[in-house]
Amino acid sequence: MAVETGTTRQREHVVHVAPGAGWPEEIRRRVHAHVADIVRRRCAEHVHSVPGSEFVSGVLADFVGRGKYLRSMFGYLGWRAAAPDSPGALGAFAGLELLHAFALIQDDVMDGSQLRRGRPTVHVQLAGWHREQGMSGSADRFGESAAVLLGDLCLVWAEQAMRESGLPAEVLDRGWPRYDAMRSELAVGQFADLVNDARRVPDLDEVMDVLRRKSGNYTVRRPLELGAAMAGADEELLTLLGDYGTMIGEAFQMRDDVLGVFGTGATGKSAGDDLTERKATSLVVLARELAEPHTRARLDALLLGSDNGGSGGSGAENGDGGADSAREGGTDSAREGGGPVDVAAARALIESTGARRRIDELIGTRVQGALRLVDGAVADGRLGDDVAGVLRAMAVRCADRAS
Amino acid sequence: MAVETGTTRQREHVVHVAPGAGWPEEIRRRVHAHVADIVRRRCAEHVHSVPGSEFVSGVLADFVGRGKYLRSMFGYLGWRAAAPDSPGALGAFAGLELLHAFALIQDDVMDGSQLRRGRPTVHVQLAGWHREQGMSGSADRFGESAAVLLGDLCLVWAEQAMRESGLPAEVLDRGWPRYDAMRSELAVGQFADLVNDARRVPDLDEVMDVLRRKSGNYTVRRPLELGAAMAGADEELLTLLGDYGTMIGEAFQMRDDVLGVFGTGATGKSAGDDLTERKATSLVVLARELAEPHTRARLDALLLGSDNGGSGGSGAENGDGGADSAREGGTDSAREGGGPVDVAAARALIESTGARRRIDELIGTRVQGALRLVDGAVADGRLGDDVAGVLRAMAVRCADRAS
Repeated sequence: MAVETGTTRQREHVVHVAPGAGWPEEIRRRVHAHVADIVRRRCAEHVHSVPGSEFVSGVLADFVGRGKYLRSMFGYLGWRAAAPDSPGALGAFAGLELLHAFALIQDDVMDGSQLRRGRPTVHVQLAGWHREQGMSGSADRFGESAAVLLGDLCLVWAEQAMRESGLPAEVLDRGWPRYDAMRSELAVGQFADLVNDARRVPDLDEVMDVLRRKSGNYTVRRPLELGAAMAGADEELLTLLGDYGTMIGEAFQMRDDVLGVFGTGATGKSAGDDLTERKATSLVVLARELAEPHTRARLDALLLGSDNGGSGGSGAENGDGGADSAREGGTDSAREGGGPVDVAAARALIESTGARRRIDELIGTRVQGALRLVDGAVADGRLGDDVAGVLRAMAVRCADRAS
Repeated sequence: MAVETGTTRQREHVVHVAPGAGWPEEIRRRVHAHVADIVRRRCAEHVHSVPGSEFVSGVLADFVGRGKYLRSMFGYLGWRAAAPDSPGALGAFAGLELLHAFALIQDDVMDGSQLRRGRPTVHVQLAGWHREQGMSGSADRFGESAAVLLGDLCLVWAEQAMRESGLPAEVLDRGWPRYDAMRSELAVGQFADLVNDARRVPDLDEVMDVLRRKSGNYTVRRPLELGAAMAGADEELLTLLGDYGTMIGEAFQMRDDVLGVFGTGATGKSAGDDLTERKATSLVVLARELAEPHTRARLDALLLGSDNGGSGGSGAENGDGGADSAREGGTDSAREGGGPVDVAAARALIESTGARRRIDELIGTRVQGALRLVDGAVADGRLGDDVAGVLRAMAVRCADRAS
């Protein structure tokens, strides 16, 4: 049975799980305090001697302070599925926000994105600082290079956060192979996206494959598995959480694709940016597949330019609600794909194909599947009520969101 | 007493240390085998599923196969100053070559460099692949983005190499704080260089400060200290190696600055590239300080353009002999600094100031100081003959090289 986004049915589901309902906000608060502290200490330690250090530290602190912390929460939830609360665990998974910051900051450079988390992207802010200082040389080039370096620092600090979390060595050793695989998967996934970007429009299977391998795994499944493995979970529990993670990760990214076309400024990015950036997301590709020939031709003319060979990058990268897969106006692909896109016309065409409703159904199927998994695991004692409640709440939060 | 580069005096010094004289080549051979194996395995594990994976794996394997492996050697030498041979140690320090690959690949993107280690830079090769494939979109942009990602992978794999070296946890735990500090220092140093790049010509003290903090520390001192600390060296030995590392690191980078002006193609880069890229290296800044007013004015006119406010980036980045601190022709700074530089005229002017001879003297002072430290440590039993011999050989190799 399909879950329509925003229905009261899902929201009631959340209310039923009162014992853990306050968790996400509490975890978020603790993770935020921890990440902010790491950035403050690391900047004081390493960045203080550099010209512009105060500005740079401020940019980083602001950036990490505005995330949703989904990856930390799923890491911690995976841990709690198999072990009691631990300040060390929370510190280790807080590091996942720095890993995410690394990915977003560098992806935004590669994509030429302008807005992220409701602010100019990091490289845009750094370019602005360069201009304000009246420095010589290219401000844009400086902004991009400096942002890549800040991303590198976040990648290093992320791993340090895990190693210095205070968790015992044997706990960390259960996590490292998964952590390393996740990091390589992340970089290779972005590489695959760059290659896709430069190719023709993929079909829906291809989009879903990239979506799973990249954003879905990285947002939900891998953090859950990492946390559970570190807590010493058995194979059965790891499989359960992995299956939940695959379904909710896909739901998360498909919702992201809907918001990229129909979302408002609440996403922290420009409305309709997936359209203006001509991204071949699940929604757009599905719309083309569902469309009558005449509608498809109009859609292609609107989105792909006359030669039908415009950049069709997957939109499956780094979904984060207010921080997702942005490729803002003014990028290479937008510049090279032809003139500006008529967003209203493209929205109407996509709506007319039924693709939006179909994506909502696909999301609903995944949420229902994940909730059934959780219910089954509670029934036979594999999951405690508190963790199950938060997994249910997070499933809905990922799938049914406006930002 | 000054050591002139290339004198027989130094070469005889090397011959005297025959017991360890074969070490550098033997260590290099073992490090090469290890790094090549890591790249092959990681690519097979993570990159194989991506379009272009064979090309990418080949580019990386070729790149890491062409280094001088100075950082691995100094790491291993630091280890051997306090502990016996260990395959695990060699594996851990081999990872330093991947860390160096990360830095060089990303720096070359930032600097717009064209040549590295006698080949087109990684981003240039990737852009060429994009063109050969007939892909849409900007090939240059693709090359830069893909190179940044390959750099990221090297950064991750470097740390994995150390963690998975097989060294006991307590050994690694002695290394991690230094390893993390070195990584942050590396990224922050490059950031400082970007800021310098956009400012006016620094004075010699400033150049020497950046030179020490960046290339010198990272090439010699930090790897030596890392290895020694992991091997359990006491404070006295750490201080000795740190002092040696500071002196030889400075000598290494000053030699690099001489090669950047007077070197041949043996450096793996274009001859005279520091001039065409208008870099404010130790040699160039010293030449300005030593020059008569008339000569200085001509030098400024040649190197800085008419407004004397051209880009004056420090040349202290990532020295690596055949792989150093490149900012090749056709970069932003070269484009923005005015027309092409008359390399022959600039060389003659610099030579006429006596700056080249003075830099050779400064290098010689440092090599002599380092050799005295080593001799003293052998005399009172703090260093074994074999390690001392290789430290002497490496001092000369770093200071007195043509590539």
